[in-house]
Amino acid sequence: MSLPDVQSWKPESRFKLTRVGVKGIKKQIQIQRPSGISNMVARMDLFVDLPASRKGSDLSRNVEVIEEIVEQSAKKLSPSLESLCSRTAESLLHRHEYATYSEVHAQADYFLERHSPTGRMTLEPYILRAKATANREGVFREYIGVEVVGMTVCPCALETIRETLGKHQNITHNQRNISNLMIEAKEGVDADDLIEIAENSMSSPTYGILKRLDEEKVVIQAYEHPKFVEDVVRDMLKNVLKKYGHLSDDTIVIAMSESLESIHKHNAFAERHTTLGQLKK
Amino acid sequence: MSLPDVQSWKPESRFKLTRVGVKGIKKQIQIQRPSGISNMVARMDLFVDLPASRKGSDLSRNVEVIEEIVEQSAKKLSPSLESLCSRTAESLLHRHEYATYSEVHAQADYFLERHSPTGRMTLEPYILRAKATANREGVFREYIGVEVVGMTVCPCALETIRETLGKHQNITHNQRNISNLMIEAKEGVDADDLIEIAENSMSSPTYGILKRLDEEKVVIQAYEHPKFVEDVVRDMLKNVLKKYGHLSDDTIVIAMSESLESIHKHNAFAERHTTLGQLKK
Amino acid sequence: MSLPDVQSWKPESRFKLTRVGVKGIKKQIQIQRPSGISNMVARMDLFVDLPASRKGSDLSRNVEVIEEIVEQSAKKLSPSLESLCSRTAESLLHRHEYATYSEVHAQADYFLERHSPTGRMTLEPYILRAKATANREGVFREYIGVEVVGMTVCPCALETIRETLGKHQNITHNQRNISNLMIEAKEGVDADDLIEIAENSMSSPTYGILKRLDEEKVVIQAYEHPKFVEDVVRDMLKNVLKKYGHLSDDTIVIAMSESLESIHKHNAFAERHTTLGQLKK
Amino acid sequence: MSLPDVQSWKPESRFKLTRVGVKGIKKQIQIQRPSGISNMVARMDLFVDLPASRKGSDLSRNVEVIEEIVEQSAKKLSPSLESLCSRTAESLLHRHEYATYSEVHAQADYFLERHSPTGRMTLEPYILRAKATANREGVFREYIGVEVVGMTVCPCALETIRETLGKHQNITHNQRNISNLMIEAKEGVDADDLIEIAENSMSSPTYGILKRLDEEKVVIQAYEHPKFVEDVVRDMLKNVLKKYGHLSDDTIVIAMSESLESIHKHNAFAERHTTLGQLKK
Repeated sequence: MSLPDVQSWKPESRFKLTRVGVKGIKKQIQIQRPSGISNMVARMDLFVDLPASRKGSDLSRNVEVIEEIVEQSAKKLSPSLESLCSRTAESLLHRHEYATYSEVHAQADYFLERHSPTGRMTLEPYILRAKATANREGVFREYIGVEVVGMTVCPCALETIRETLGKHQNITHNQRNISNLMIEAKEGVDADDLIEIAENSMSSPTYGILKRLDEEKVVIQAYEHPKFVEDVVRDMLKNVLKKYGHLSDDTIVIAMSESLESIHKHNAFAERHTTLGQLKK
Repeated sequence: MSLPDVQSWKPESRFKLTRVGVKGIKKQIQIQRPSGISNMVARMDLFVDLPASRKGSDLSRNVEVIEEIVEQSAKKLSPSLESLCSRTAESLLHRHEYATYSEVHAQADYFLERHSPTGRMTLEPYILRAKATANREGVFREYIGVEVVGMTVCPCALETIRETLGKHQNITHNQRNISNLMIEAKEGVDADDLIEIAENSMSSPTYGILKRLDEEKVVIQAYEHPKFVEDVVRDMLKNVLKKYGHLSDDTIVIAMSESLESIHKHNAFAERHTTLGQLKK
Repeated sequence: MSLPDVQSWKPESRFKLTRVGVKGIKKQIQIQRPSGISNMVARMDLFVDLPASRKGSDLSRNVEVIEEIVEQSAKKLSPSLESLCSRTAESLLHRHEYATYSEVHAQADYFLERHSPTGRMTLEPYILRAKATANREGVFREYIGVEVVGMTVCPCALETIRETLGKHQNITHNQRNISNLMIEAKEGVDADDLIEIAENSMSSPTYGILKRLDEEKVVIQAYEHPKFVEDVVRDMLKNVLKKYGHLSDDTIVIAMSESLESIHKHNAFAERHTTLGQLKK
Repeated sequence: MSLPDVQSWKPESRFKLTRVGVKGIKKQIQIQRPSGISNMVARMDLFVDLPASRKGSDLSRNVEVIEEIVEQSAKKLSPSLESLCSRTAESLLHRHEYATYSEVHAQADYFLERHSPTGRMTLEPYILRAKATANREGVFREYIGVEVVGMTVCPCALETIRETLGKHQNITHNQRNISNLMIEAKEGVDADDLIEIAENSMSSPTYGILKRLDEEKVVIQAYEHPKFVEDVVRDMLKNVLKKYGHLSDDTIVIAMSESLESIHKHNAFAERHTTLGQLKK
């Protein structure tokens, strides 16, 4: 018995679709990092485009593709989350013969060793975000992004209060900051470096454990680097340019910073969406 | 033609159920506040218990009940979100003749006028949480809770740094704090007072708009009241006792405070779940 | 005493920023709908761009602007959430004299009267999403979007099972569907119409209360219109073209549909991002 | 130089606190499962109580404790998430010498091999929730819970429509269901068994990949087991009793089921909070 292939029917409304796929697939994956094998749970979205002539995209293929890639990865480890996305995007085009474009997103918790100001080693949590796109012209684009939680100290209140209470007074508000840095993943671009760039662009990194002396040092260091969200984004851009300025001018860079303002109930936000070429101007 | 009443069938597995109902119903409601009519969008959950002998609870009755209560409220306004929950809980017992217990939760955005340190009027956002339960013995319990966003200034880093840099130095970390205060809603208990209690128990309230002089005053005031989450909870309890100490000893009080620590990626949390009687000891 | 204006300082890293602003501001607003005044709680984000020469954006102005617009609206009501966003975007350019671009987002719960299959009137919940942008060339763009929850019935399993069990068998899986439709808000575009378009493009609308006969009719109607997420998006596009085909070709249209698949733990998703001109081809 | 120990100060408001601690700590952990080592990212909350005489709880100790437990676990693997919580709860009492009670929560993604109806092997995602409490009387309680996503088919619409369209017609609505089952973790209680119990108590399990024949079989099987959320909870209780009826009568059992109703915008919910002894009555 052959079962009907409803997806391949002609649709009643003849419009092509930009993206069709599955969202929220959870997969256990392994990545070969310089420091060893990293076990992750990735949350993934997989899409292809759909021509006007075809009713459905047969979404079960997307899930098969990611399962195959994960299986292959168990034998031959991917060096990064973004390369795993690229392999998946390429494979999607193979399996959806009607598609001209594919797109894959992945997000996973990630951990790196850090040292507190007194030298105490801690494993700090970050989030990786990868994205890859592919088309029939053989153009592949691969992006790697990081989400880093740190701290900002407000330069405005600091100056205002110095003006009022005297230069010796360093009171100001500070708060948790969440910054995202994403860049097109070309030769030599690495998530660990992006995390370092984002973390160093804030008033201070933050840590899981801080004994009293550590806490003191973190606060004092943060006060020595008062920053608006605007400053955090600009310092990320400056550091990206320093580290990756040799990459081609069309390399996409997205930097965002959001502060959970302690003196407001809303957040402060800044963003630059650009290319390395634009940054060099 | 009479349609089968599947809910009234005998279930295969004969166990009674603690709570059966609907979650996430959104309703537009109007409440008669002292300051005027307050329009709210409430997100509601409605439950009754279910005896072992009955297969289903007929959940459409729950939605009918809340719709009727909302309709009646349009003619005769409820004085509070918690009293609207009470009326709903009572009505649920009428409609589910097999039930011995009913429970209703509601949550809504709420706004109050506040004045910034320089006297500027702003409308600040809060969240109301109400709960009501009823049983066949005629015991009704009604709770009103508030969620308030404010600011805490860490007393520990403040002292540590003073020790190191000298008494004149007031550097420390501070952060957004989210506090919840819930109390059994008896005669004279009012959400506006609870919001005031929670707000005044923090290092400082926060505001939507702060021009430079306002910002300065908020920060200085916050530094004059350094508080752990533990202090915020205790000050809420102290202020509840002061305001509502005359209520009966069995009055339930729940106070919680959570700080989005600026120096950590995790939150600090403190809670007391108690009665007025316990607090008086 | 004049307080220092830190925002106007020159930044150390000279990069312009794409968007700087505040996120997550909650405001009570009133909109003049054809059916009467609609009270809403809007959650808003407000941004401007920032030149390379200026350190900070002075975010308190954003909050002042939205407060003024809301205040003015109390006197002269806005006819829609998107026009309130437009007025805010325009005002942001006035207040941030250095900015060349402004952008405003708003989201709010919204309710419309609907009739169940047996004619029972209910108030059903929806979400409105509005967006407006403005620049110094006097170009304003205004968008209105709706989020609608409904139901999809899978055409694939329906046909497969008919093949196996016989033509008379109509078993298939169905599930909650969340669809979003956004269009550039030109003359005659109205949120209520968009909600109707999205709702009619699903297998069936859904309702708060369904007594047994209603429930039966909703299910039977849904089975008569089996649809993939791909079909929902295409039917939204078809209906948008029918209703708004007379608008200019550059009018932006974004249609998305996501099904919380009952047979999978992940979601199915389809999207078209296009213009009316493209749709007419 | 000795730094001031602000936490040990006497508080101004003398109230004891029920729970003080940290929320949202992310930790990479390894668990020794029967099937091999399981790598997880756990999201943890850690609390102790606080006497009226002590200002602060010194939260950095909580983070030290979990870090030590995780480190020890690297050498001597815990057999389960709940036993790791127990070790942490015990250690919290050691480190917080003033505390009389400790409580630890953990939550993690988890995967199990499943076979689709046609025998295809897939790795399906679940969520584990563990909890442990300890006190100075040496009473330890340990709980393990699972969150399972599956499918429910409505028995009510099925019967109603059969009545109207004839016995041969099996049309009804179905939807994604999310069920939680938690039990006190005594000898022989295992998360994998709880997942099986929850999954088998629904109308059907669900799968990542379903080719057409698989999809057909899943749907047909689900229609053969129509269930309200009430039925899902009762069947979990029945299966818990069958599997764990030999455990002591005071063993706590919590079963919850929530259906993302396809015909409504809100959810249906049922819950039983009980003990094995109560279930045996």
